[in-house]
Amino acid sequence: MSDIGTDPDPDEEAAQRQRSLMNDIGEAIEAGDAARLDALLEPMHAADVADIIENLHGAERRSFLQLYADKIDGEILSEIDEAIREEVLEQLPRDVVAEAVREMDSDDVVDLIEDLDEPERAEILAALDEGDRVAVQQSLAYPEYSAGRLMQSEVVTAPEHWNVGQTIDFLRSEEWLPEQFYHIVLVDPRRHPVAYVTLGRLLAARRDTPLRDIVEPSFRVISAYDEEADVAYAFNQYHLISAPVVDKDDRLVGVITIDDAMSVLDEEHEEDILRLAGVGEESAITDTVFETLRQRVPWLMVNLVTANVAALVISMFEGTIQQVVALAVLMPIVASMGGNAGTQTLTVSVRALATKSLTGSNVWRVVRREALVGMLNGLTFAVVMGVVAWIWFDGISLAGVISIAMVVNLSIAALAGILIPLTLEKAGADPALASGTFVTTVTDVVGFFVFLGLASAVLV
Amino acid sequence: MSDIGTDPDPDEEAAQRQRSLMNDIGEAIEAGDAARLDALLEPMHAADVADIIENLHGAERRSFLQLYADKIDGEILSEIDEAIREEVLEQLPRDVVAEAVREMDSDDVVDLIEDLDEPERAEILAALDEGDRVAVQQSLAYPEYSAGRLMQSEVVTAPEHWNVGQTIDFLRSEEWLPEQFYHIVLVDPRRHPVAYVTLGRLLAARRDTPLRDIVEPSFRVISAYDEEADVAYAFNQYHLISAPVVDKDDRLVGVITIDDAMSVLDEEHEEDILRLAGVGEESAITDTVFETLRQRVPWLMVNLVTANVAALVISMFEGTIQQVVALAVLMPIVASMGGNAGTQTLTVSVRALATKSLTGSNVWRVVRREALVGMLNGLTFAVVMGVVAWIWFDGISLAGVISIAMVVNLSIAALAGILIPLTLEKAGADPALASGTFVTTVTDVVGFFVFLGLASAVLV
Repeated sequence: MSDIGTDPDPDEEAAQRQRSLMNDIGEAIEAGDAARLDALLEPMHAADVADIIENLHGAERRSFLQLYADKIDGEILSEIDEAIREEVLEQLPRDVVAEAVREMDSDDVVDLIEDLDEPERAEILAALDEGDRVAVQQSLAYPEYSAGRLMQSEVVTAPEHWNVGQTIDFLRSEEWLPEQFYHIVLVDPRRHPVAYVTLGRLLAARRDTPLRDIVEPSFRVISAYDEEADVAYAFNQYHLISAPVVDKDDRLVGVITIDDAMSVLDEEHEEDILRLAGVGEESAITDTVFETLRQRVPWLMVNLVTANVAALVISMFEGTIQQVVALAVLMPIVASMGGNAGTQTLTVSVRALATKSLTGSNVWRVVRREALVGMLNGLTFAVVMGVVAWIWFDGISLAGVISIAMVVNLSIAALAGILIPLTLEKAGADPALASGTFVTTVTDVVGFFVFLGLASAVLV
Repeated sequence: MSDIGTDPDPDEEAAQRQRSLMNDIGEAIEAGDAARLDALLEPMHAADVADIIENLHGAERRSFLQLYADKIDGEILSEIDEAIREEVLEQLPRDVVAEAVREMDSDDVVDLIEDLDEPERAEILAALDEGDRVAVQQSLAYPEYSAGRLMQSEVVTAPEHWNVGQTIDFLRSEEWLPEQFYHIVLVDPRRHPVAYVTLGRLLAARRDTPLRDIVEPSFRVISAYDEEADVAYAFNQYHLISAPVVDKDDRLVGVITIDDAMSVLDEEHEEDILRLAGVGEESAITDTVFETLRQRVPWLMVNLVTANVAALVISMFEGTIQQVVALAVLMPIVASMGGNAGTQTLTVSVRALATKSLTGSNVWRVVRREALVGMLNGLTFAVVMGVVAWIWFDGISLAGVISIAMVVNLSIAALAGILIPLTLEKAGADPALASGTFVTTVTDVVGFFVFLGLASAVLV
């Protein structure tokens, strides 16, 4: 980790250590030296080993997986990025994979196999114990991206009439407990969760205290059919640490813990940011050249089409441009300002939708406000750019034309920036998806049309 | 929360409930009906009440704070967005604020007062008990955005030689325990943290088990001087739930829990996304018109300057455009494709830097790969656009000119998209900040210059 204002440059030191480690690993792979590889990776956390595997490519990764196969456990496997997981699974010996999945919590197994094809999926399911297999299959029965897929089925529960002593004795006698748990969920005889107790309160209470007396004041239950993005939002908004998950009959079927919610929040953000930039949402710096092209070319193709639409608008005014070449010089400014202003509004709107701060109750106020901001922005830059154009080309009419075009385009930009994501959301699509392209298409077309159209009417 | 494919439209229902709630609240405020307001807000979580306060404006918010003052507690106060917190504090009676801060954990008090001016800060500090005041002041002594500011000083510790029974007896006898805690930190006699035990393992172990036998295998300590962004990264990467914080002498000074790390991760993402779009990083949909203009105008001004630089490049070729007006039609396409391709690379690079997957060890490989992707993108769209231009304007030379300009500009776009954020990072700046403007300036200037320059040489 980097320090704030103490050592000279700890970031640089860390980068150098990282570079020399990757060099050493590369050498060990080339030499086929499994012992050296073990020694280098032994002190590392599973998540960091997974990062190293992601950073290796082609033949190097294959050799690594051969040399290191018997050290690859469930923890490393569940940390490996989805994009390369299938490839890694194929290259590992079957018994290594089987052994690894047997160690994993049910939610990690679900995460591992949900994107696999049927034969690979069946093979991994076959490696699990009966109980684990049933849990994983139940989880897979819920829709993709639902809470049911995210939850782990291992939950620590207690009957609602127990006291602290009974609960502690039960925990001490229980052979198997989840790796991490933060609450005891109280259930009624029909397995409906009714409350929960934090482990801290359980530890601090006397043995004869009824659990009922130390339950948490607020208690949130998640439906297995909730979307994972909404689950992440709830954890962040209400500072939850874990929450019980129920099926359609309100019966307890699992638990979601904050570390999984944090991963979802992280992924959702990543998706938004990549989609806004017109990059496939699974893009990573470790992708191959081909993979990268496959993700980026479609978006550039869409942009090429819209850029040609804008060019078509310009071509309607070829005659005017030939007479007043200054128009060719100034027209990209109108379009560029519109594009930028529209992107600003768009980004704020997309984030507001994601954080549920743009809701039915304030949507019209926000739209009105954005329109006003757009107009005021337009007026500001109409004055500035009017003066610049006037001085540059010594023409008051040209200055007037660009000023009016600026006000119109920046107002339209603001409206497009909010109405486009709202419309996408309303239609059930991701408001971040493709909205950038829609918004700049609108601002390009409107910008060129208003500027050149006005110029044709006034100047020629 | 919304469901996946069960009810018709639960999102719409939730939005309507929210609308009617906000209406009722508005009416209660207008009628000055404090009892009605209490009844409406009573079932709500503090975080949701804070959201409502954020959504009210001007006189309405002031009336709300008057009517609801005696219900505003520490929890609501710490949930209110930074942007309006100072205003809210000013409008609340002093005794309400004093009472509220006395209930808060030390990290929430630090978060509340770190941005206040000296007199307001001193007033709040004066309201705290001696012990809390010292803890808050110690935290404030660490740099802004450091782990020291994020931690809470309330930590549950045990001497390393204790057993489970001694620890449970201690917890039962302790009057005061933090609201939420997940580990017992083992400390040596000089208060250096040496290991930790999860509460789950503590509960499951027999009373005579030494704590040493049930400590977690991996144990990470955070320096109070670490940057909060690095802390959030570590929590996410290593699935930490809480981690002890130490000072320069490795002595335990506090603990950071995952919910705080999750908030930081959320804020960091939000900052990245807003900075990439050229919007002030504190922008919210609830800002006033004036506030919004203040954040957006500076970035639009920067864009106006760079758009004028691009216009200056075009004006160098006025004569050529007058002779071949098709150039004016096609030139925005070259610039637009460059801008889009550059933004794609930029976004992936900024995210890779934020997630530490673009490091010293792979930087040259990634730069080479992006350059190759840029060139291949350029070749793809050179062919497509060459054909379009040839058909549209029936000129093979014009087609050749736009093809070459496309290859050059998309290659430069890729390089700019990765080298600009890398340079900013190297210089200690935020790689997201202003990089969008830099990248599009490069692609506009290069795009116009290469296209029009080549055209001047070949076509005229």
